[in-house]
Amino acid sequence: MADEYRYQQLENWLLQGILDQRWRLGERLPSIRALCSEMDLSKATVQHALQRLEAQGLIEARPKAGYFVLLQPDGVKKPVSRARIEAPRPVNVSDLLLDIMGRSAAFDLLPDLRSGDLPPGIVTLNRSIGRALRRQKGDDYQYYDKPAGDIGLREQLALHHARRGWTASPEQLCVTSGCQHALFLALMATCERGDVVAVESPGFYGVLQLLEQLGLRVVEVPTSIETGMDMNALEEVLERWKVRACVVSPSFSTPGGALMPEPEKKRLLALAERHDLAVIEDDIYADTALGRAPDPLKALDMDGRVILCSSFSKCLSRDLRLGWISGARWHDRILHLKLVTQLASSRYLQQGVADYMADGSFSSHLRRQRHELRANRDKLIALLHTWPGEVRVSTPKGGLAVWVELPNDVNTLSSYMSGLERGIIITPGPLFSVSGQFENCLRISFAHPWNTSRIEGLGRLQDLLLS
Amino acid sequence: MADEYRYQQLENWLLQGILDQRWRLGERLPSIRALCSEMDLSKATVQHALQRLEAQGLIEARPKAGYFVLLQPDGVKKPVSRARIEAPRPVNVSDLLLDIMGRSAAFDLLPDLRSGDLPPGIVTLNRSIGRALRRQKGDDYQYYDKPAGDIGLREQLALHHARRGWTASPEQLCVTSGCQHALFLALMATCERGDVVAVESPGFYGVLQLLEQLGLRVVEVPTSIETGMDMNALEEVLERWKVRACVVSPSFSTPGGALMPEPEKKRLLALAERHDLAVIEDDIYADTALGRAPDPLKALDMDGRVILCSSFSKCLSRDLRLGWISGARWHDRILHLKLVTQLASSRYLQQGVADYMADGSFSSHLRRQRHELRANRDKLIALLHTWPGEVRVSTPKGGLAVWVELPNDVNTLSSYMSGLERGIIITPGPLFSVSGQFENCLRISFAHPWNTSRIEGLGRLQDLLLS
Repeated sequence: MADEYRYQQLENWLLQGILDQRWRLGERLPSIRALCSEMDLSKATVQHALQRLEAQGLIEARPKAGYFVLLQPDGVKKPVSRARIEAPRPVNVSDLLLDIMGRSAAFDLLPDLRSGDLPPGIVTLNRSIGRALRRQKGDDYQYYDKPAGDIGLREQLALHHARRGWTASPEQLCVTSGCQHALFLALMATCERGDVVAVESPGFYGVLQLLEQLGLRVVEVPTSIETGMDMNALEEVLERWKVRACVVSPSFSTPGGALMPEPEKKRLLALAERHDLAVIEDDIYADTALGRAPDPLKALDMDGRVILCSSFSKCLSRDLRLGWISGARWHDRILHLKLVTQLASSRYLQQGVADYMADGSFSSHLRRQRHELRANRDKLIALLHTWPGEVRVSTPKGGLAVWVELPNDVNTLSSYMSGLERGIIITPGPLFSVSGQFENCLRISFAHPWNTSRIEGLGRLQDLLLS
Repeated sequence: MADEYRYQQLENWLLQGILDQRWRLGERLPSIRALCSEMDLSKATVQHALQRLEAQGLIEARPKAGYFVLLQPDGVKKPVSRARIEAPRPVNVSDLLLDIMGRSAAFDLLPDLRSGDLPPGIVTLNRSIGRALRRQKGDDYQYYDKPAGDIGLREQLALHHARRGWTASPEQLCVTSGCQHALFLALMATCERGDVVAVESPGFYGVLQLLEQLGLRVVEVPTSIETGMDMNALEEVLERWKVRACVVSPSFSTPGGALMPEPEKKRLLALAERHDLAVIEDDIYADTALGRAPDPLKALDMDGRVILCSSFSKCLSRDLRLGWISGARWHDRILHLKLVTQLASSRYLQQGVADYMADGSFSSHLRRQRHELRANRDKLIALLHTWPGEVRVSTPKGGLAVWVELPNDVNTLSSYMSGLERGIIITPGPLFSVSGQFENCLRISFAHPWNTSRIEGLGRLQDLLLS
């Protein structure tokens, strides 16, 4: 009892400090050691108080760095919008998406900014690729690589995944031209025209485009911005309709950066087994984790039905066009499809990236990037909290964007064109669904360098949407 | 009359010289100027005699170099095998093809040889790519390229095609990951599951694999090793069955390097218009021409129904994984499919290749390569003519391989495994068809450096097939 009293005292004292802005958004709380000595408390008591504040979403533990203020308590308005369950339907993707992609915008508010120096991690990467090019000899250039890809790169990818709890062999991996290409191969291998595919809602527009082009039908499963696809909703969907595959992104799904808890992952796999479902895991955001990268769903797959798809586009470079797939029981068919639709990947490029991973440069890059992303995220969220009215913002622990819910009378879709006139490109909420939902929402990226132009651009965005 | 007599005299004298091996296979005849002065003949008379010998396939004109001996008259045994017309059928591609591709063999007899230095054209190419990598700046690496590809590369490709009689604008071109990827996009855009596609027979196995994976049915059109797809046969096919698309390779089709004459091209386009057919032109071998590269079929397309597909894989490097497509009336749909299945191509790579084309390095490379390919072809044909029995060999004016017809009791397919045991990989005739034809045929590449190992390998091939 006495001990319980003491941790509550500490919890209240810390909470008051956050309310008083003694520690502001993104700042570090005093260390456990300092709290123990200053407050004369045991380490267990201090940890207990901190964990309770973390569970309320007010602070965040960062490995080897301590606890950081995540949100002001009065700013804790979490997105609440929720998709409806509707019957499977054909997909018809908006032309808007093509317009955005045609602008090479990468969903950046200010695609023409392109400021700053090339980060050291990319300079090193380009040197590795250059060296691999210079190593070519004889008539190397006259041979296609093996369809599965370079063995050196596949070994490095296997090691990389082993650190995240999934022990893969290089034979289980096939190199692709990015994650979109991997998702395409996964859907081609598991579905036939007219089949029903379950997806997250809101979720990744690229999957919706693929379903449209492959003549597949979609059923959208309501998805929490914090914990990912709702397993109760998925269960209901699977009982009502014959679903062939489920595309899910347990580690920082787009648009909001949700992280699926372990028990939900296990429930997903049990449902997949009961309903004989292919599970296509879009793992592309895993290495943008602001802390330790979460284990993939694939690590729990004992039944050979999780196809893992990923690429270097979000965590390293979008211009590499290099991804990978692990096809589970469909792997041979996927290898065959890769061969038939593209023959091979570039050997020098794969070898350059393999070297970059083997000498530790990739890990260093991820470490540096993690710090920048965290700082950008905190600054973006802090700025959005200064917007007037009912503005709710997700607080992702990974990914490259936040999901913002605005008052119900805001229409982000109809603001797209006026945004263009003001020199900003927005990513309206309805892009992340086929049913026209999320009109008052949008996704905002924090992937790009934070500077005065960006702050000014976000000011223009506020004017556009809220005035 | 007197003039006719004189050119016949010269023709007979030259013929006798070839028979006597005064001028051997691949050697140059005396120049027109020398013949005029030595034989005291007019230039017109000498040209007339040379053109008659050329029409008989005995000699070959090479621009700015003169006339060269092509074949010994008694060696003129041209391949005669001809495909049968059979009803459309689903495609089931042999596992053998996957085995060959899995060996990264590029259809080379001796894939493990990889000897020699990197040619200067490839060294220069790699330097251009390296420079483009080093030009990256700011957050370039965070953006995808536009789906159609880099405008600089598309401008260079448009210029390149303009030299071959086809005036394309960059907007008509979309960059792909190689020609196989382009063919895949073309078939996805024009056909639906169950549709019938007409192909060359013998023809490119990669197309057969695509038809299999896309659930399309094939009808094989008999194809001459010298003049390409037989238009009488195609007409018969189009009258009997509803065909959606026709895949054809007018410039040096594989396996034999056939070159479709201009009148046949016009007939193809007229048939396509009458039967409302998409024509998919596989133009990948055009730049391997031993003389001037022929105009593409696309240059004659007034009706927007020829989709041109090509890549740098055969004329420059198979490891670039860079191709292009011009989609005619289906171009928007093809752009959309490129975006959805792959997002974008690598910008630095495209810019490196664009620089390489713009500074003339690509043209120099093609010039150098042309001389080597011609020499390799002549040596290969000369060696094959020393084989005993009824051996017929194609004499392509471009492409990278000859088609060889052996006595009827030879079975190239069943020799594949014993070939592997002897360290050689053969490309059996039946791979080039779905109907098990061409058992006594095989394709042999002359793309690789000619040396004693290769001569010895061809000796092993002769033992394998003819002893």
